[in-house]
Amino acid sequence: MTLSPESRPPAAAVVIISGGLDSTTLVYHLRAQGSDVRMLSFDYGQRHGRELNCARQVAQDLQLCHHVVDLRAVGALLGGSALTDPGMAVPDGHYTDESMRATVVPNRNALMLDIAVAVAVTAGSDAVAFGAHGGDHMIYPDCRPEFVDAFTASALLANGGFLAAGFRVLAPFLHLTKADIVRLGSRYGVPFERTWSCYRGGARHCGRCGTCTERREAFQLAQVPDPTAYEAA
Amino acid sequence: MTLSPESRPPAAAVVIISGGLDSTTLVYHLRAQGSDVRMLSFDYGQRHGRELNCARQVAQDLQLCHHVVDLRAVGALLGGSALTDPGMAVPDGHYTDESMRATVVPNRNALMLDIAVAVAVTAGSDAVAFGAHGGDHMIYPDCRPEFVDAFTASALLANGGFLAAGFRVLAPFLHLTKADIVRLGSRYGVPFERTWSCYRGGARHCGRCGTCTERREAFQLAQVPDPTAYEAA
Repeated sequence: MTLSPESRPPAAAVVIISGGLDSTTLVYHLRAQGSDVRMLSFDYGQRHGRELNCARQVAQDLQLCHHVVDLRAVGALLGGSALTDPGMAVPDGHYTDESMRATVVPNRNALMLDIAVAVAVTAGSDAVAFGAHGGDHMIYPDCRPEFVDAFTASALLANGGFLAAGFRVLAPFLHLTKADIVRLGSRYGVPFERTWSCYRGGARHCGRCGTCTERREAFQLAQVPDPTAYEAA
Repeated sequence: MTLSPESRPPAAAVVIISGGLDSTTLVYHLRAQGSDVRMLSFDYGQRHGRELNCARQVAQDLQLCHHVVDLRAVGALLGGSALTDPGMAVPDGHYTDESMRATVVPNRNALMLDIAVAVAVTAGSDAVAFGAHGGDHMIYPDCRPEFVDAFTASALLANGGFLAAGFRVLAPFLHLTKADIVRLGSRYGVPFERTWSCYRGGARHCGRCGTCTERREAFQLAQVPDPTAYEAA
């Protein structure tokens, strides 16, 4: 398990948290490193809106500042993803399948990071952070290291003079697998049973969609007990 | 007057339009070049919300598709700019003054452009365009050529495989002065009297704030009659 190299933890970070396993662990991780964490979540009309309640619970547990930004107008404009369009089915099976391209919300990470950068300017934070990990690379181009580098270069140019000194865009899990993240979260005591992954957004995790499949495997590989209640055995 | 060099006009462009003089002329310009134009505007709680009605009028005049995206939740989160915060005064005088930094909305262009990129993915457009011009460079870092280049590189990486072939981020006025834009708009018959610039958002243009000062001078320099009704003589 190799965390992305960082010379020093940020003094203050704006962390994008969905309420899922990865981003929740990221909040615990940065907090453990001593960073002052401000949480940012996005309501883009995702059918798994339940994850936002998980994020709210993290904020309450850890007594952190948390903003949920209403981007439903943007989600409505885009449509065309199974994550936001009730008329489209969420596909079953592994992330690596071509069919999982249906879960791409165009340009989502850039958009969320842009708002996080703006909040960092306002709050004087010296970092924004998001929970992209190694398993995301294949299907989501905006989860790859080269995107993080290019986005950072653009953000620095866009906000020259307004950002805190040494400002960085952090993706500390970029070279971790999801199993690595489960191991790390387990060390921090992350309440995994209160995180939400399933794209279907039912009462319980479906256990069959791409993100459920990945979640189950991660606990198995990490040899950490999986506290999730799945619909499918 | 040097328009940014372009080998060919885009087949279809998502154009960010505020309802001001520059972006309205940009819509007329791309349309004159034969591009299929889709207009995108943003309500971020700007006190000069009146400009959005000007953008709506352009859409109606030219029979173009127009989306106004509600970003008030983002505007409320940021505050701290005289453009959105009713508690802050809009400063008088020239843009080059240090005091005009109060009109910076953090990371605004990157955010608007990233939403435009997402729309371009959805609509299959091969360009997004915005109306930054030479006079914006001094105070707004996200209006500079190096930002446009860095942003483009990031957008291409974030959406690899999802964007139309040959996708570009266009800022055709980047090397024009506002007077050049007035001359260009005059050739296209842009109804300048129906564009809105003033940051104060009163019933008429105040004639004194940075953008009014710039607007008045542009018409004078371009030797084009200024149809604007200003409060201050």
